[in-house]
Amino acid sequence: MKEGFSISGLYTDFYELSMAQVYFLQGAHLKEAVFDYFFRKIPFRGGFVVFAGLSSVLEFLEKLQFSSDEIEFLRSKGLHPDFLDFLAKFRFKGKVYAPKEGELVFPTEPILRVQGSMLETQIVETLILNFLNFQSLVATKAARMRMVAKDKILIDFGLRRAQGLGGYHAAKACMVGGFNGTSNVKAAYDFGLEPVGTMAHSFVQSYDDELTAFSEFAKNRPQNCTLLVDTYDTLNSGVPNAIYVGKEMEKRGQRLTGVRLDSGDLAYLSKVTRKMLDEAGLDYVKITASNQLDEWVIKSLLEQGAAIDVFGVGTSLVTAPPDAALDGVYKLAFADGKPRIKISENLKKVSLPGKKQVFRAHHSDGTLVGADIVAFDEEINFPKMIHPFDPLQQLQLHPYQFKPILHMVMENGKVLTGIHDLLTSAKYCQEQLAKLPDEYKRFENPHIYKVGISEALHQKRIEIKSSFKN
Amino acid sequence: MKEGFSISGLYTDFYELSMAQVYFLQGAHLKEAVFDYFFRKIPFRGGFVVFAGLSSVLEFLEKLQFSSDEIEFLRSKGLHPDFLDFLAKFRFKGKVYAPKEGELVFPTEPILRVQGSMLETQIVETLILNFLNFQSLVATKAARMRMVAKDKILIDFGLRRAQGLGGYHAAKACMVGGFNGTSNVKAAYDFGLEPVGTMAHSFVQSYDDELTAFSEFAKNRPQNCTLLVDTYDTLNSGVPNAIYVGKEMEKRGQRLTGVRLDSGDLAYLSKVTRKMLDEAGLDYVKITASNQLDEWVIKSLLEQGAAIDVFGVGTSLVTAPPDAALDGVYKLAFADGKPRIKISENLKKVSLPGKKQVFRAHHSDGTLVGADIVAFDEEINFPKMIHPFDPLQQLQLHPYQFKPILHMVMENGKVLTGIHDLLTSAKYCQEQLAKLPDEYKRFENPHIYKVGISEALHQKRIEIKSSFKN
Repeated sequence: MKEGFSISGLYTDFYELSMAQVYFLQGAHLKEAVFDYFFRKIPFRGGFVVFAGLSSVLEFLEKLQFSSDEIEFLRSKGLHPDFLDFLAKFRFKGKVYAPKEGELVFPTEPILRVQGSMLETQIVETLILNFLNFQSLVATKAARMRMVAKDKILIDFGLRRAQGLGGYHAAKACMVGGFNGTSNVKAAYDFGLEPVGTMAHSFVQSYDDELTAFSEFAKNRPQNCTLLVDTYDTLNSGVPNAIYVGKEMEKRGQRLTGVRLDSGDLAYLSKVTRKMLDEAGLDYVKITASNQLDEWVIKSLLEQGAAIDVFGVGTSLVTAPPDAALDGVYKLAFADGKPRIKISENLKKVSLPGKKQVFRAHHSDGTLVGADIVAFDEEINFPKMIHPFDPLQQLQLHPYQFKPILHMVMENGKVLTGIHDLLTSAKYCQEQLAKLPDEYKRFENPHIYKVGISEALHQKRIEIKSSFKN
Repeated sequence: MKEGFSISGLYTDFYELSMAQVYFLQGAHLKEAVFDYFFRKIPFRGGFVVFAGLSSVLEFLEKLQFSSDEIEFLRSKGLHPDFLDFLAKFRFKGKVYAPKEGELVFPTEPILRVQGSMLETQIVETLILNFLNFQSLVATKAARMRMVAKDKILIDFGLRRAQGLGGYHAAKACMVGGFNGTSNVKAAYDFGLEPVGTMAHSFVQSYDDELTAFSEFAKNRPQNCTLLVDTYDTLNSGVPNAIYVGKEMEKRGQRLTGVRLDSGDLAYLSKVTRKMLDEAGLDYVKITASNQLDEWVIKSLLEQGAAIDVFGVGTSLVTAPPDAALDGVYKLAFADGKPRIKISENLKKVSLPGKKQVFRAHHSDGTLVGADIVAFDEEINFPKMIHPFDPLQQLQLHPYQFKPILHMVMENGKVLTGIHDLLTSAKYCQEQLAKLPDEYKRFENPHIYKVGISEALHQKRIEIKSSFKN
């Protein structure tokens, strides 16, 4: 698995480099700093977010550097020569703590914790936000589709409607959320996925009649042959022609893999198509459906008994409407020996200081209680809870098991062993979703997973805030 | 200007290659075909779309090829050895017709026309859709912001919230729509743009007090120094500290460039900040505002007299909500010597056959009439209009000037000279918008720009449709 885009130190906002120059010239660039990545709002009015994008971030951090041409470009933009000499030799040497890719994560809790020099932790902000925000968004959308699609096959058809090159990481992230394949050949090549797809309407149109188009296709590409049956008239022309070709394939000792419906009422058409195929003895032929699918449409189609085996999902998967972005941020929590916060008029938006861990409550049977506690790293053993979070306060009364979800995944700029591959992450995600009670997975007004903070963290935040007198 | 991602023949949907194999094995791959790129719905309930992405498409088409590793990957997925030998030597050799980048375009009319062999015109479908759909979406969003921002400066701050790598082309496309700069350093490097940005909250937080943070920044990076004033308390701390530093800079013969507001009521805060700066003799210091801006917020802020000189726009620019994708499609219009159509239950969705041109109506003073006519390429001289489109029928009564908007931009796989650079495209876009009457630029229920088809095209479509008897 490798990322197929050029990894460059310039994949950042200019202000990261502006700030870095000041740290450098001041001699403050090597002081220790800790940043947290977290988000504030669950997209899709849902009850959980699937963490994804970690492997992309780690690969980028390992390889991040500035080429000599890039350094010259920055020189032309007025950056200081001494700073540029430093950047020319720069490599990321920090530590990263993160959940496993595919982990369920919730608002306000630290998800990625980046620890290193002030300079290196600052300049990687943009790429971390860019990768994690988008891949977690798409993985979450995919997981919602997987929940309703149950054991049906889900394929990413989104590249053509993706936000430009964004389609590349969408194809990767949807695998974490539970998709089975992608039409995106580049992503399949780079990430070891199965590329999927057979024909478009243009193929059928390019022949004078549909039957010839189907016959030629089946003869020249018999493996995984799925015929698109809605170019002219699905039930009167497309399906009968596909059946004819399917029977011809049988005579050649081959099997038609499927038919695809791409317009009209997919519930009605799939049921009639299934009946026609079965009556022709082609009960093994699968029905694929595509056309403006999302988690709501898939749910509704299956509730109506649609005979669909494979869903091809495009725009709604890769652009994840109505929430085009996860609102993740990257906030300084510790610098130069001191915990730090960002003040806000809204107390809930005041960031959490210090080096922190997230402890997740489990029942004895392994299922999730629905509560995490953010505490200082040191509070390893059952951190004390605070008052404003009633549900968490109750937790103290019970012998729930708390497990940390952040693990060190990079040290001295090198990825540690044990990072999951995509399929392992996908499996891990489904295991976690199975442990999450149904009320958190509801589409409408799901139960709110509680995130509390430890008494020690609460006190530290108050102490720092009160030290700011205007 | 160069694209900074790896250009690969695999940047496609797998079905393009599946179909291509069939054309190849059948010996039909070299037959002539024509595809049209067009869209059906204007995003943002707006009245126009700005065409963008052409230069990315052309660069990709010129360089598109399959590496030997990629060929081996496709072999492992079951593609035919003879076809793979062909692909290994493949280069795109077709023709492309397109409007100028920055042109205004409208639903149903052909925008990109790709002409060449059946095989080459088919396999480039996905990249064309991917690039044009997204870049045109963002250019359109940017143009809407430019309309309301008038002569204020607009900067792309979107990379962190972009849909992954999509932020790269967003930074490029927003320039076509009228933006002035970007925080995205990689895009600035590749596309010759001005990277913009100075400091984040984390910079201020990393010091024990705000004044020290501002002073150190101004000392170590005095050029284009914009201080972020809302980390603790904008009016009681941030702005007074910025004024202090601004006066210190004056003593050193330097000038503070600006202050940035990133939270709170931007109209109120900007007005008070302006007054404070002016009273301190810092009337040259610019005010930048950011935080959840979109075209509606910018419009509202300026209507309320906000004293904002520079708008930094993030999520809403680069992800373009509420329409995350332009619904562009790529349809076969001509193959193997015959015009082709895609039938649909909905007559309006039946595609337009043949090799076509778009003729745009102008008044004698150069302003746009609000009507285009799609006609066959041959109908160079004032094509005849048809009945269902009343406004167009009227046009025949008047001596409007019709000018074709599609020009050949690539021949034999080589980009022709005269392709605009980004700044020229941006200028062209503003010129076209100035020619478009205001009623088409309204945010609420804009007047609908009419797109008609010629009598000859209408007749041909009826003739082909009636030839399909089920």
